[in-house]
Amino acid sequence: MFDFKQYMKNQQKRVNEKLASLFAQAPQKSRLLSAMHYSLMAGGKRIRPILCISAASAANENDMDVLPTACAIECIHTYSLIHDDLPSMDNDDLRRGNPTCHKAFDEATAILAGDALLTLAFEILSEETLSHTPQVRLEIIRIIANAAGPYGMIEGQMRDIASETKRLSENELEQLHNLKTGALITASVNAGAILAKATEKQQQQLNVYAQNIGLAFQVIDDVLNVKGDPERLGKAVGTDSDLQKNTYPSLIGPDLAEEKARQLVNNAIESLQDFDSRAEPLRAIANYIFQRDH
Amino acid sequence: MFDFKQYMKNQQKRVNEKLASLFAQAPQKSRLLSAMHYSLMAGGKRIRPILCISAASAANENDMDVLPTACAIECIHTYSLIHDDLPSMDNDDLRRGNPTCHKAFDEATAILAGDALLTLAFEILSEETLSHTPQVRLEIIRIIANAAGPYGMIEGQMRDIASETKRLSENELEQLHNLKTGALITASVNAGAILAKATEKQQQQLNVYAQNIGLAFQVIDDVLNVKGDPERLGKAVGTDSDLQKNTYPSLIGPDLAEEKARQLVNNAIESLQDFDSRAEPLRAIANYIFQRDH
Repeated sequence: MFDFKQYMKNQQKRVNEKLASLFAQAPQKSRLLSAMHYSLMAGGKRIRPILCISAASAANENDMDVLPTACAIECIHTYSLIHDDLPSMDNDDLRRGNPTCHKAFDEATAILAGDALLTLAFEILSEETLSHTPQVRLEIIRIIANAAGPYGMIEGQMRDIASETKRLSENELEQLHNLKTGALITASVNAGAILAKATEKQQQQLNVYAQNIGLAFQVIDDVLNVKGDPERLGKAVGTDSDLQKNTYPSLIGPDLAEEKARQLVNNAIESLQDFDSRAEPLRAIANYIFQRDH
Repeated sequence: MFDFKQYMKNQQKRVNEKLASLFAQAPQKSRLLSAMHYSLMAGGKRIRPILCISAASAANENDMDVLPTACAIECIHTYSLIHDDLPSMDNDDLRRGNPTCHKAFDEATAILAGDALLTLAFEILSEETLSHTPQVRLEIIRIIANAAGPYGMIEGQMRDIASETKRLSENELEQLHNLKTGALITASVNAGAILAKATEKQQQQLNVYAQNIGLAFQVIDDVLNVKGDPERLGKAVGTDSDLQKNTYPSLIGPDLAEEKARQLVNNAIESLQDFDSRAEPLRAIANYIFQRDH
């Protein structure tokens, strides 16, 4: 019987140790490094790096040396959170109960810490590993840069800001989420698959998995904001409708939104039907996304 | 006789055409792409990409397909200018006589346009070229990411901000400049040398060249701010001492500062003594740095 909680705990530990080691060789702990460290080690669930690791495991039983890539993706995710929280963007003072980077430090330091985490990610990705050819590493860099760049995550954030003052269609909302969160989630899974030398067919199936959970993740986030239990969620609910945000529950109603999320998760799990028990972590992550507060 | 002006004009044209082509395939011109394009095509002198191209030419007479790398470096330089100009950093409204990115667009768009140019740079660097092995391309990515990251350019900007409120020693000022501008200039030259398959010895000599002109560039900037002709410079002079900034003229006096710059340029040219006429562009760039407004 696959123990999901234990699996997550083990992988989080691996990821956290590797991330912490990025700062271990630093000649001196500058204010910049302190700010990077502060946000990177602020208790994220490490979903993206674990998806990368789990996709690699699903395709290949060997440890394929995916940890550096997984951690580079977490650096990119963290930079995006730091910049999204800035006063000129979402203007958030708190993240996971702690002051955001620009509150704990200052705005200039937060911008530069984000820039530095993004740059560091590509330095990590450029470093040699034992298991992968330079050709493969370049492909990983291309996939991640493309997903995080002006045709992916950053365009998603642009649209998210613009959407605050207008009403989106369901299709526009889906595009926004696919760019803002889906692209990097998909890149995480695809990178893991490529590092593990998955077959073309496996890569396609894992890609379908990723696209479905990427969107499911966001739909469920919206649903929980309407129907969730604030005590179990650890944060306030109902804040989205207060702000008249574009959400799935407000567009199609909370019940249909929940149904949509269930369908996306089912599609994700179905896309893994040719995989054996090594894909259990990916299946469990899909279920976890749907059930995280139901 | 080497025609430096014509050479610069030709290379600027090549770089500008390549940079413009980055936007040619865009499915639609989003606000994000418009902001990136605005800052990237705002009339920079393209010193870094031309150094990259010229270093490659100095080591090898073939066209070694260095243009994509040269343009990726210019994307990184432009992103750093956009972020440095932000209200929480240097708070500049004008750059080269035009509104800065956050003035022409808005602050959120400027931050994201900078992020996107940085990310795009690594996507460009990850793309295959005919002349270089994946191994070499990875090494280029590593060199550039390291120079632009938290132990290079970004740390330089942190120190620059911190230095506004304190008096630096000459040594601290030199370290600041080596990080803030020297690191990326050195990476530009080193990347060109590696792409051109320069020998180990040539790489070392070009590295000495780069370190000297990187610092000379900044010392001369400071000197021109004190002694320059505002009409020929196209900008106000004397602004540094108004702001009580840490500069070489204020630390060691304008004459010694000018002498220091001359020495750095001489060192740079001397380091190229084993190179033949193919290093003329590099020699001319060094002289240009010293003479650009004398």
